[in-house]
Amino acid sequence: MKVKEIGEFGLIARLYKMAKQTENKKQAAWQQLIVGIGDDAAAYLGGGTVQLATVDSLVQDVHFSLSYMSWRELGWKSLAVNLSDIAAMGGSPWYALISIGLPGDTKVEDVVALYKGMSAIAGKFGTAIVGGDTVSSPFIFISVTVIGCAIGKNNRILRRSAAKAGDKIAVTNYLGASAAGLEMLSKNLKFKPQMAKELKQAHLTPNPRVVEGQLLIEKGVKCGMDISDGLVGDLTHICQESKVGARINVDLVPVSPTVKDCFDERALELALTGGEDYELLFTASPLVMNKVKKAMQCPVTVIGEITEGKVSKVNLIDSRGKPFSIKKTGWDHFLGLN
Amino acid sequence: MKVKEIGEFGLIARLYKMAKQTENKKQAAWQQLIVGIGDDAAAYLGGGTVQLATVDSLVQDVHFSLSYMSWRELGWKSLAVNLSDIAAMGGSPWYALISIGLPGDTKVEDVVALYKGMSAIAGKFGTAIVGGDTVSSPFIFISVTVIGCAIGKNNRILRRSAAKAGDKIAVTNYLGASAAGLEMLSKNLKFKPQMAKELKQAHLTPNPRVVEGQLLIEKGVKCGMDISDGLVGDLTHICQESKVGARINVDLVPVSPTVKDCFDERALELALTGGEDYELLFTASPLVMNKVKKAMQCPVTVIGEITEGKVSKVNLIDSRGKPFSIKKTGWDHFLGLN
Repeated sequence: MKVKEIGEFGLIARLYKMAKQTENKKQAAWQQLIVGIGDDAAAYLGGGTVQLATVDSLVQDVHFSLSYMSWRELGWKSLAVNLSDIAAMGGSPWYALISIGLPGDTKVEDVVALYKGMSAIAGKFGTAIVGGDTVSSPFIFISVTVIGCAIGKNNRILRRSAAKAGDKIAVTNYLGASAAGLEMLSKNLKFKPQMAKELKQAHLTPNPRVVEGQLLIEKGVKCGMDISDGLVGDLTHICQESKVGARINVDLVPVSPTVKDCFDERALELALTGGEDYELLFTASPLVMNKVKKAMQCPVTVIGEITEGKVSKVNLIDSRGKPFSIKKTGWDHFLGLN
Repeated sequence: MKVKEIGEFGLIARLYKMAKQTENKKQAAWQQLIVGIGDDAAAYLGGGTVQLATVDSLVQDVHFSLSYMSWRELGWKSLAVNLSDIAAMGGSPWYALISIGLPGDTKVEDVVALYKGMSAIAGKFGTAIVGGDTVSSPFIFISVTVIGCAIGKNNRILRRSAAKAGDKIAVTNYLGASAAGLEMLSKNLKFKPQMAKELKQAHLTPNPRVVEGQLLIEKGVKCGMDISDGLVGDLTHICQESKVGARINVDLVPVSPTVKDCFDERALELALTGGEDYELLFTASPLVMNKVKKAMQCPVTVIGEITEGKVSKVNLIDSRGKPFSIKKTGWDHFLGLN
């Protein structure tokens, strides 16, 4: 069987099962593992602190194209997606390691610009870039590792597995702008300058919700993740890990106003399945949710609730209770649309 | 200017300079950094513990070829080289993160074999594989991050910058077998089965000197690294970081007996410049060196001494004091031989 037949998530599931089997609970290292494969970041008890660790690789012409992206933007985004994984756990980022694969005829100035983009976002979130390596490669790839820690005395973290039936489901800010930006850039669509700028920024220089993730922890939220694969696909991950169902009222989903303006009736689809918004998706009791809404500076929108219904299934309805269907739930780089 | 014109080390030097400039000492994250770019691993004070962090990427047909290497061996080696970086700091490995780039038509069974090779060496060194990601890519690449910690109460680590004039220079075990193995495998050379097996293992399934690195710390050694680029090239790194010179008696270099048997007069060159032996190269006062030699189970050979002479220069002599010259000092994947 080939990887493209089972896809990224099929492969991860297979390796996850293997990891569980090869875990050696007698070994000290495995006893320290709190959260392994299957969440946004791993959580490991090291030196008395809950550490968070995540890695993501971006590959040229798979995850990005230099035809519409500068090297500086590439640097920003490659670190941003990993900082977002730490945000998704409600943690604080400590430091980053960078491994870059480059063809030999890459301009040194371009590598410097890449590094400047990384430094800019690292500085914004107080993250040190402590090391890495640079290797010869026929194509460009960037692997970024970020290590962070749980905040507060109790070392609590946001987990995908902590949703409970009756929880409200909410997202930060607005959705769809990153996918809209990708479509605009890759298809060379033309919009009003201010709108085009907003969509471009949403896709190329996203802002990880580090502060917001920490606020969720402070207010008692236990279940959360970041939206990287698309709202419906990511909520499915929460349902799978928490062994619950979910019901979303699509009319409540906070679609980016600019996406509505530019993409009209396709805007909702982009918000539901587009991915790479790097907003936070979380669930909490109505009481906790109210506390979050009062405290959070950016918009927080309740879009549905966790159900006991069919496990791992996300049901989409509209405001009249009518089922709403979508063609795809997310993106798999091995499978394409799925 | 292009990357291939300045090479891997030229590029690292440029980024290192930039990192120094962008370090923001006012930020908490940077204040915690003990060792940054320029050593085998970064050292970061997190949660009261000195953490060690390293990342290395292996790229298909640049760093390895599946024409002579199984997927299981690739898994072993990709984790081994990072565990060796922790060994080079005298530390203890905690956990690993794996990011793999794969073409869609890769067999799932091959990915499973890769993971089994990683699990085997992880189990040997008590290292947990806690997470990672798997991405679509036109070529195979594997980025491995290992996080570990300094051992003992005093959090001491081996540094490249700690060599002092008058220190003896020593290496663990024997050198040259990995480079000999690569040459045998890539040129399909034929040797006696037992010898061929030894050379193959040296190149494909190296054993990081984790225990030995920790023993160096316990005995008071302060300067050390692992031999990845080649003895002369790596010792040059120590000289650069420590601002000293070095003198090596090439007749003392412990060339692998099997390499001598198979490669005759080329054996010494392979031991001096071949690289990827993942033995430890370290310097210490004669007193400390004697303690190390008594305590270490594997052979320890003194091959020369640190000098005040020309900074960053490694002088090679033979037992009669006659200068010995070599064509290259190490390997740069951007530049080739240099």
